[in-house]
Amino acid sequence: MQRFGLHLSELRRSRGISQEGLALDSGLARSYLGGVERGQRNIALVNICRLAQALDVPPSRLLEFDVSRPTPKSRAKRK
Amino acid sequence: MQRFGLHLSELRRSRGISQEGLALDSGLARSYLGGVERGQRNIALVNICRLAQALDVPPSRLLEFDVSRPTPKSRAKRK
Repeated sequence: MQRFGLHLSELRRSRGISQEGLALDSGLARSYLGGVERGQRNIALVNICRLAQALDVPPSRLLEFDVSRPTPKSRAKRK
Repeated sequence: MQRFGLHLSELRRSRGISQEGLALDSGLARSYLGGVERGQRNIALVNICRLAQALDVPPSRLLEFDVSRPTPKSRAKRK
């Protein structure tokens, strides 16, 4: 979930969209979106598709995260 | 959700895997998987990733469904 959150926030930022803006465009609560980006929410398919539509990308694009990429937690453990 | 379900069952069949087999490999209940394939379940990210792992495809592959594809319901309405 963390990798999805990291990937989502990178996609959002690369388009110069604020969290508030994406929340508004996708119809999701800003606080919920924050939790998704922090990897704390197990987001469901319908909301993944809403975010994809708001970012104007195909839904699959949101899941193109590197499954082997270290996450902040796994990096912290290795210190 | 219906498009995801149709796409998932096509992916599963193309690999010659039964619903029982995919349920076993992914750790999901067979009845839940049946509901996902019928488009009746709003599957969450963690379970999407479990199915992708069981099918040995990247998670994004499961969301590469054609968002404009007519679904059985939309076809029925047009008759």
